[in-house]
Amino acid sequence: MTLRLGVIGTGAIGRDHIRRCTHALSGATVVAVSDLDPDAALAALRVHNPEGRAFASGEELIASPEVDAVLVTSWGGTHARYVQAAIAAGKFVFCEKPLATTAADCRAIVDAEIAHGTRLVQVGFMRPYDDGYRALRQVVRSGKIGTPLMVHCAHRNQSVPEMYGTEMAVVDTLVHELDVLRWLLDDDYVSAQVIFPRATRHTHAKLRDPQIVLLETRKGVRIDVEIFVNCRYGYDIQCAVVGEEGIASLPEPAAVAVRHEARLSTEILVDWKERFIAAYDVELQDFVDSCRRGQLRGPSAWDGFAASVASDACVRAQNEGGVVPIAMPDRPSFYDGDGTGRAA
Amino acid sequence: MTLRLGVIGTGAIGRDHIRRCTHALSGATVVAVSDLDPDAALAALRVHNPEGRAFASGEELIASPEVDAVLVTSWGGTHARYVQAAIAAGKFVFCEKPLATTAADCRAIVDAEIAHGTRLVQVGFMRPYDDGYRALRQVVRSGKIGTPLMVHCAHRNQSVPEMYGTEMAVVDTLVHELDVLRWLLDDDYVSAQVIFPRATRHTHAKLRDPQIVLLETRKGVRIDVEIFVNCRYGYDIQCAVVGEEGIASLPEPAAVAVRHEARLSTEILVDWKERFIAAYDVELQDFVDSCRRGQLRGPSAWDGFAASVASDACVRAQNEGGVVPIAMPDRPSFYDGDGTGRAA
Amino acid sequence: MTLRLGVIGTGAIGRDHIRRCTHALSGATVVAVSDLDPDAALAALRVHNPEGRAFASGEELIASPEVDAVLVTSWGGTHARYVQAAIAAGKFVFCEKPLATTAADCRAIVDAEIAHGTRLVQVGFMRPYDDGYRALRQVVRSGKIGTPLMVHCAHRNQSVPEMYGTEMAVVDTLVHELDVLRWLLDDDYVSAQVIFPRATRHTHAKLRDPQIVLLETRKGVRIDVEIFVNCRYGYDIQCAVVGEEGIASLPEPAAVAVRHEARLSTEILVDWKERFIAAYDVELQDFVDSCRRGQLRGPSAWDGFAASVASDACVRAQNEGGVVPIAMPDRPSFYDGDGTGRAA
Amino acid sequence: MTLRLGVIGTGAIGRDHIRRCTHALSGATVVAVSDLDPDAALAALRVHNPEGRAFASGEELIASPEVDAVLVTSWGGTHARYVQAAIAAGKFVFCEKPLATTAADCRAIVDAEIAHGTRLVQVGFMRPYDDGYRALRQVVRSGKIGTPLMVHCAHRNQSVPEMYGTEMAVVDTLVHELDVLRWLLDDDYVSAQVIFPRATRHTHAKLRDPQIVLLETRKGVRIDVEIFVNCRYGYDIQCAVVGEEGIASLPEPAAVAVRHEARLSTEILVDWKERFIAAYDVELQDFVDSCRRGQLRGPSAWDGFAASVASDACVRAQNEGGVVPIAMPDRPSFYDGDGTGRAA
Repeated sequence: MTLRLGVIGTGAIGRDHIRRCTHALSGATVVAVSDLDPDAALAALRVHNPEGRAFASGEELIASPEVDAVLVTSWGGTHARYVQAAIAAGKFVFCEKPLATTAADCRAIVDAEIAHGTRLVQVGFMRPYDDGYRALRQVVRSGKIGTPLMVHCAHRNQSVPEMYGTEMAVVDTLVHELDVLRWLLDDDYVSAQVIFPRATRHTHAKLRDPQIVLLETRKGVRIDVEIFVNCRYGYDIQCAVVGEEGIASLPEPAAVAVRHEARLSTEILVDWKERFIAAYDVELQDFVDSCRRGQLRGPSAWDGFAASVASDACVRAQNEGGVVPIAMPDRPSFYDGDGTGRAA
Repeated sequence: MTLRLGVIGTGAIGRDHIRRCTHALSGATVVAVSDLDPDAALAALRVHNPEGRAFASGEELIASPEVDAVLVTSWGGTHARYVQAAIAAGKFVFCEKPLATTAADCRAIVDAEIAHGTRLVQVGFMRPYDDGYRALRQVVRSGKIGTPLMVHCAHRNQSVPEMYGTEMAVVDTLVHELDVLRWLLDDDYVSAQVIFPRATRHTHAKLRDPQIVLLETRKGVRIDVEIFVNCRYGYDIQCAVVGEEGIASLPEPAAVAVRHEARLSTEILVDWKERFIAAYDVELQDFVDSCRRGQLRGPSAWDGFAASVASDACVRAQNEGGVVPIAMPDRPSFYDGDGTGRAA
Repeated sequence: MTLRLGVIGTGAIGRDHIRRCTHALSGATVVAVSDLDPDAALAALRVHNPEGRAFASGEELIASPEVDAVLVTSWGGTHARYVQAAIAAGKFVFCEKPLATTAADCRAIVDAEIAHGTRLVQVGFMRPYDDGYRALRQVVRSGKIGTPLMVHCAHRNQSVPEMYGTEMAVVDTLVHELDVLRWLLDDDYVSAQVIFPRATRHTHAKLRDPQIVLLETRKGVRIDVEIFVNCRYGYDIQCAVVGEEGIASLPEPAAVAVRHEARLSTEILVDWKERFIAAYDVELQDFVDSCRRGQLRGPSAWDGFAASVASDACVRAQNEGGVVPIAMPDRPSFYDGDGTGRAA
Repeated sequence: MTLRLGVIGTGAIGRDHIRRCTHALSGATVVAVSDLDPDAALAALRVHNPEGRAFASGEELIASPEVDAVLVTSWGGTHARYVQAAIAAGKFVFCEKPLATTAADCRAIVDAEIAHGTRLVQVGFMRPYDDGYRALRQVVRSGKIGTPLMVHCAHRNQSVPEMYGTEMAVVDTLVHELDVLRWLLDDDYVSAQVIFPRATRHTHAKLRDPQIVLLETRKGVRIDVEIFVNCRYGYDIQCAVVGEEGIASLPEPAAVAVRHEARLSTEILVDWKERFIAAYDVELQDFVDSCRRGQLRGPSAWDGFAASVASDACVRAQNEGGVVPIAMPDRPSFYDGDGTGRAA
């Protein structure tokens, strides 16, 4: 039976998910949309599904018996409200990051979900669905490189707009590492420190760029993440896990090797959307398949909460300059199987 | 409107395509199967579609009004018959390679299709749908490396069974290069020569392994293809285009780099099915989308015929030892846009 | 005119330098040795130069009119004494690292050399003579990657003996990075911090392994150096300079690429002596050529002093846990041309 | 005792060898030169050795009791004459390639040397002294990749002058592969074929460029060498040995990896002199050491003869178009130890 999806928020990412669910995935159809501008939303949907329907509000969409599951792709400040409504309605919901804008709101979602009794929420962290990260995790878990001791990461964007400030380097950018490294290592953070190197001349007034974030985990792993969002040369994600007997590194994307003008070279992507484009398909297909099977296994509300707690600490570390402890509660047994189990 | 597919032949590849169309692709459903053993075929289908139906023969399946388009995944000797029946019924048909077992039968399919007036046949050459080959072709066509002069290729399998004889190195293995290089270069072959190096001790009585096939094209490009199907170390496909100003090489598949025991290494695949696994999805999705749009653009009956003509010449070159001319007729204007246009 | 060298200390490195000067370099001959055991020393020398002579003490060797220049390859605790004696005698002296065991003793050598009026001392830092580091520096100085902002380094040994304690990770291992990075960046250090990740199970009681050293430079560059001396997999030196417009990385040593048993791999060296073996030849040849020309240009006493000051701070950072400032005096104009100029 | 060298021919390569023997090598001094213009020759020498002497002819230089060994770096047409004179004088002689301009003249040198009773001649093939080729040979001989079956090579130059004609692609360029592959495989050639791909627009009237040379060895190994001397992008030497269990490839020269402007790249050399610059030093040092030891082990007169025989066959294959047999006599036992033994 085809899964009938409702999409709340039809901006760029919402429209892309409508296209994806209609033309790239199997087993789902988008039947409903809602947006501040319902007519525009409906027009966007109708390209793909002439019979689709626009609702005046997200809440009405969630309540509709025609909608089996919900995608929340609206503005971040509204996420918590719609996710809570979906839980109240007992419907599966896929929420783009962030799950909520505060850790308290994330925690409230966790509590509501536990009260409901089964998982309903998947958070839109797509990196655990990327072939490269999966292959890296497989090597780490195989024991080949031994127990992980350190992780060296880089998250580099070609450039960012003026509205991107220092905190966004954590909240919008680092948050992907904060999630994927928990999953990669099956571990949690206990402290954070942020170092500011000499700033690049290509940054602007409100952004200290680059930054280096130092994280410590419960198991004692030390992680350094270079965040450099005006690196000019491309969109480049690097991750190397140093273990007791060896080192494993995230694959570089496959690329044509060219010998030309005295250089042997491969292309580096510049657009972040291309870097994980396949992962978005796998992520949503997994959500669709999980809904149809009646059991979610992707990044959970707890993962969204954990990312939020770590993210808050990193922002404090940006402002305070020293080592900031991260007090992460123990994971409720309700979420056992996540962390290691999710997106396996 | 969902495309209703019928699958003729439910061996390994047939069953894999049923799974693919049901769970990985968008816009299609498998509603019918036929096989020598209709009950087993139906059982295989019902896992994915409880309402599917088994037909006593491929011809009956093709004739059924419930079937919009046909996948031919039966034994090679039966391909031509089913494809001809599909053309006679005016239905789209996707035929796994070979299109037919003789060039004459391929040509007869071409003639029938032209008589019908529009393209109905897509041949299952999946490499033009592989991201790596597409990226390579994009570089070649960009002009960056200049006009192609030479192509160096290797097609290596870990091992082959006893039933795989010397001719199969051409008919089953080289045929992929014969197709994809025509598409890569937008060119056709004019001669072939086969060289037999010292045989590996890992081959068996009926197989000369390795072989080197030398091809010449209309435009004067010289191609060498090493075919080595008991290479032991893995499944490895290489292709480097040498142009007037540079060289472009097929990407190595992305892989985790590991530093361990005094070596820096990446994994080489051993299973050919994994190497092009994504390409199969893209290929079939393109067929489904093309059928729904009413216009095919993938590898055509003419491409199947061309591969067959080249393949015949290479087998003669294996047996005769010298340079064998390849007399390929000019492409009918009916197929204009193919070659360069297909799978663009 | 051939340069007549005297070698003080004929342990492994001393004997290797005798062989090097005799059989690999041009323009020098080893005519004298001294060691605690003069007979053994003389025996070692006579393999290469039957007419060589052993002195009862380093001081006598230095004073001999048959000796034009001195190599100090004795135990570290004796270096300062012999270097001072050579300066007093007005002779060129090449001193293996460390120049002296305390910053104060290094400074005293600097003062004595300045009082003498011309450079007489070269310190045995060989990395600035390595082709890879030179190529890296050339790229950095070309401006191609823009102003350096960060440097990511790793210094990994396969294993170390029981006598190697936590401080030696700085004094014996990191000291190479402390020198070569000053030269690479034409910069000096202003602070250091040391982080201890989870310890590898392959370390022993007196050694915390691995360690991460964080350095800050006058220009604001942030450097992280992973020191991991029981990494098991090999001897591996990495260095990536992140600039405002790009990144440049130290070359991996050239190695045969092998496809074998489902892996594409290159060898990683395990013996540190092989990694910089060519650099030792270039270094000593440069010392010989410089002596014959009458003007040194290699790593200076000031460079030895600077490494000592930075090294002391890093050891304090190991013990204190926080950020330790590094108070490096301004370089006397006497040494202008060094830093950037040396080993250009 | 220092080896006293005389250099016949003080063109670019002769002057470079004088510099090399004086400033880079150990154990030799250049004491004599001869050239058509003795004054210019002497001037060139005196930069390095003020006491050096110019002779009116090569023969007089060879005869001088002040000269222990001879370097022949004159015009190719004169090589045989000087080598024969050195043999007649019982002096060691290093002769730049070609040993002689005809196979018959090479053979006459072999006969003279055998008549003399011990090896006196080393031919200037430097690739067996290259670290990369040595490492490749070590892997091949280790048995790791099994018995060699095929070798794929490329020899690419950025461009060549107008005077470089089709035959020179064999005589000047391929000759390096003809020598080094015999040594790499410990094998000899039995046939050659030359294929001419579409010509690059960057060639000129007298040169067919590129060419592909196909060689067969006694052991049945098949070799293909792409010769492309106007490839524009750089000087690039490639060699991959395909064995029964794996493949080993000549290392790419170590180079700084740069991430810049959406590309990850390394530099490709453009100047052939830089590619093997270290090998020239090792080659000449080996000659000097061998002379002082009284026993040569580098490329022999027989190797020079073998290259000449193979080279002649390849030129015929260029002109005749088919497969040309190569009739190489068995190696006299006098040269046992060469082939495998030389430059080990």
